[in-house]
Amino acid sequence: MPGAALVTAPSIPTAPVTPAILDRLRAIVGDKGLILDEQDKRPFVTDWRGELAGQAAAVVRPANTAEVSAVIKLCYDSGIAVVPQGGNTGLMGGATPWPAHRGIVLSLGRMNRVLNVDPVGYAMTVEAGCILQTLQETAARHDRFFPLSLGAQGSCMIGGNLSTNAGGVQVLRYGNARNLVLGLEVVLASGEVWDGLRALKKDNTGYDLKHLFMGAEGTLGIITKAVLKLWPAPKDVCTAWLAIRDPRAAIELLSEAHAASDDNVGSCELMSRACTDMVLRHIPGTQDPLKAETEWYLLLEWSSARPRQDGAGMSDRMEQFLADQLEAGRVLDAVIAQTEAQSRNMWRIRESVAEASRAEGPGLSYDVSVAISGIPEFIDRGLKAVLDILPTIRPYPLGHIGDGNLHFSFMGPKGMDRDTLTQYSAAITRVVNDLITSMAGSISAEHGIGIEKLDELQHYRSRTELDIMRTIKRALDPKNIMNPGKVLRLE
Amino acid sequence: MPGAALVTAPSIPTAPVTPAILDRLRAIVGDKGLILDEQDKRPFVTDWRGELAGQAAAVVRPANTAEVSAVIKLCYDSGIAVVPQGGNTGLMGGATPWPAHRGIVLSLGRMNRVLNVDPVGYAMTVEAGCILQTLQETAARHDRFFPLSLGAQGSCMIGGNLSTNAGGVQVLRYGNARNLVLGLEVVLASGEVWDGLRALKKDNTGYDLKHLFMGAEGTLGIITKAVLKLWPAPKDVCTAWLAIRDPRAAIELLSEAHAASDDNVGSCELMSRACTDMVLRHIPGTQDPLKAETEWYLLLEWSSARPRQDGAGMSDRMEQFLADQLEAGRVLDAVIAQTEAQSRNMWRIRESVAEASRAEGPGLSYDVSVAISGIPEFIDRGLKAVLDILPTIRPYPLGHIGDGNLHFSFMGPKGMDRDTLTQYSAAITRVVNDLITSMAGSISAEHGIGIEKLDELQHYRSRTELDIMRTIKRALDPKNIMNPGKVLRLE
Repeated sequence: MPGAALVTAPSIPTAPVTPAILDRLRAIVGDKGLILDEQDKRPFVTDWRGELAGQAAAVVRPANTAEVSAVIKLCYDSGIAVVPQGGNTGLMGGATPWPAHRGIVLSLGRMNRVLNVDPVGYAMTVEAGCILQTLQETAARHDRFFPLSLGAQGSCMIGGNLSTNAGGVQVLRYGNARNLVLGLEVVLASGEVWDGLRALKKDNTGYDLKHLFMGAEGTLGIITKAVLKLWPAPKDVCTAWLAIRDPRAAIELLSEAHAASDDNVGSCELMSRACTDMVLRHIPGTQDPLKAETEWYLLLEWSSARPRQDGAGMSDRMEQFLADQLEAGRVLDAVIAQTEAQSRNMWRIRESVAEASRAEGPGLSYDVSVAISGIPEFIDRGLKAVLDILPTIRPYPLGHIGDGNLHFSFMGPKGMDRDTLTQYSAAITRVVNDLITSMAGSISAEHGIGIEKLDELQHYRSRTELDIMRTIKRALDPKNIMNPGKVLRLE
Repeated sequence: MPGAALVTAPSIPTAPVTPAILDRLRAIVGDKGLILDEQDKRPFVTDWRGELAGQAAAVVRPANTAEVSAVIKLCYDSGIAVVPQGGNTGLMGGATPWPAHRGIVLSLGRMNRVLNVDPVGYAMTVEAGCILQTLQETAARHDRFFPLSLGAQGSCMIGGNLSTNAGGVQVLRYGNARNLVLGLEVVLASGEVWDGLRALKKDNTGYDLKHLFMGAEGTLGIITKAVLKLWPAPKDVCTAWLAIRDPRAAIELLSEAHAASDDNVGSCELMSRACTDMVLRHIPGTQDPLKAETEWYLLLEWSSARPRQDGAGMSDRMEQFLADQLEAGRVLDAVIAQTEAQSRNMWRIRESVAEASRAEGPGLSYDVSVAISGIPEFIDRGLKAVLDILPTIRPYPLGHIGDGNLHFSFMGPKGMDRDTLTQYSAAITRVVNDLITSMAGSISAEHGIGIEKLDELQHYRSRTELDIMRTIKRALDPKNIMNPGKVLRLE
């Protein structure tokens, strides 16, 4: 990923956290809600990738919405900047304070209660600090399914997922995070609490405010609670790992999979050989599902809420489908997971890519999206363009191709250090983003803008659109205390 | 419905359309784009129900986005109020100018081109003045399905549907109008054009602006184009009309229908005997599907994108399901449509209710929503409360119960004129809305706020929420020229 050294820090509020204000913070959250020691603050002021390091006067960890509200009101009155933070697993630096930040990081991590589960009403009310995996397990215990699934689910928190409109591996059928929400509770920049915790499917009573806060990456307000939608629990799941002819075959496969699975395609993830090898190299306990040496693979999962029907269940259908696709030359080899462990291994490979890349060394990664039919063309033209600039860079593309979302990723050339690689990143970023934009695609499919894509957003979005966003930002956060300098440049 | 005589007109801009401005309008849209004659203006300044009559200096009908932009810029510069209008089929007066309105009505009706259909990409780009039924037929011609379906579909326009986040009879599976959209083009209050016409499923590049304009009922900007999502065309559809035990049976039926239909429930509409009789009375060509005299009915439709499988198609499954439910005592009698004509008859009854009620005479109707499990309780308590106030009022409840949305409707007592009925409406509105609010429901499930529920919104929404909406309104429309006095009171 491009280093944030390439992004000039915008001007942000610099009112300090004086001793008097620190006392008032302590009066609100108690000592247990404050982290002041430099070492203890470190995990909160650096990003997960280890590429950005900022600072903060204090990390504040409220226990409930009332404390969040009081803290924000104090910050608002004093003009102190606030960086809201969930699990700090983001990849764009959106939850990391700038080096010049003099305010606080507000961590939601202690607000981790599931407040209500309504299986009959298919809804669940939770605090923003709940870890995603915990929510998945809670839903499962009630014979329900909460579809949001991504690699970081063991540490990311739902508030952050909603603030970034997270994507993940189940978007194909269920949509992005904003599609999984019925209501929100949000603390505004003034400290006021907006209670939008409604659980209704149909409610046309004024502007739909929740969609404003979701995807705003903490720059308009802090999500403190959410009412999440639940679905019936999957009862019949079949996971397969396919060696395929090429990316175009993947798209043809997916198109036919809808009918073959009786509209039960859950996930369709493209993996390159290089990507799989990188994971096998660094992540202990993972095994190559297939002994294949070919270039492209597909992780395909079908999932039905109906119990397995003899002879017509997901695995029966998958077997028939794979046989047909082998005959058609789209599939070269395939294995269907026979056990829970085999399925988990396949998923672990897919979900550990970010972790493996961190261990591998310096690299660049572009989270882009385009119409599904454009994926093969983008891969071809993109690889050509990037290798033209740096022939020894090592591609390892992968992605949620069913949504048109590719993680167009590269390991740096063998032996090249981070600083040297960074010298190439501006040029590479430009050709990749120019290409995706020329194909009517997006420069950030799911990871958001944060710090990393501040200038890219400025470059590619129309003046009119940026102005509307600035207008809304200034209206809802007139003192610019909410995660300042992220997503949008105000000047 | 409560008369707008009960809603005090807010203050709205009163800059007049001077002869000079009229000349400039004529220069933009031509004579063919202007309606000035009082008689010709009448359909545009009165609402569909015939209950509200306002005025306008001119009805302006641009041919394209550039003309809309120029008209709005002129109005913005001169402070002239604009009422955007689609098919003028709304039920809350949102598209009707106030009696004190001195500005224009801007009708999107000439902008009715389908710009692009992408069957492979499951998307369709259209202008805002396209009639909904036309879009349904266009999708069908390409073997695709656009799910938005409501009674007014022969006259309503997609721009209005999106501005009001319309619901309809397919929400159960596909969601509200805002769920059917990938991108928008919007003319802002300044006249600037925001081009958000993207067709990507995943695109996290800043704030999601389209969700702000959808459901804003024209008060934040004018939708001029949209990229709509398409779905596979239904191949196997089964429609049935059921005489059921009571509303609670309807909910139990629906719950079991998901499994019985293999997750293919398309629509589930509750109809009372009184409602059905009212339609049969007034709408020529409709026939009672069942010779039953019982109180409650369900229109149930199952629909699959897979071709009919012998012995396991939708109608086979429906037969089995109805047999089981008859045995369980939830269904008293039922008929499955055997022909296209029989199915259309069933749907015509459901979709003609508003038209029939207009012919029947004065009445009151409450478009509410609540958790599905609360519907029977709401009906019981609501009927009791309303009949307490006016014992001779005649209920005809119906609704999209699968979404928890009830149209809690009443014909006035036999022989009572509109003015007399209006004397009761404030008290009846209060008990109905108090009841639905106490059950954590919504006072406007799908019809929006418009004029009719201005004060109700003020009454039931928190001060904080109203303030956020006002803040956004003032930021995006500082001169308050966009459909002023609708949805929100600014003072």
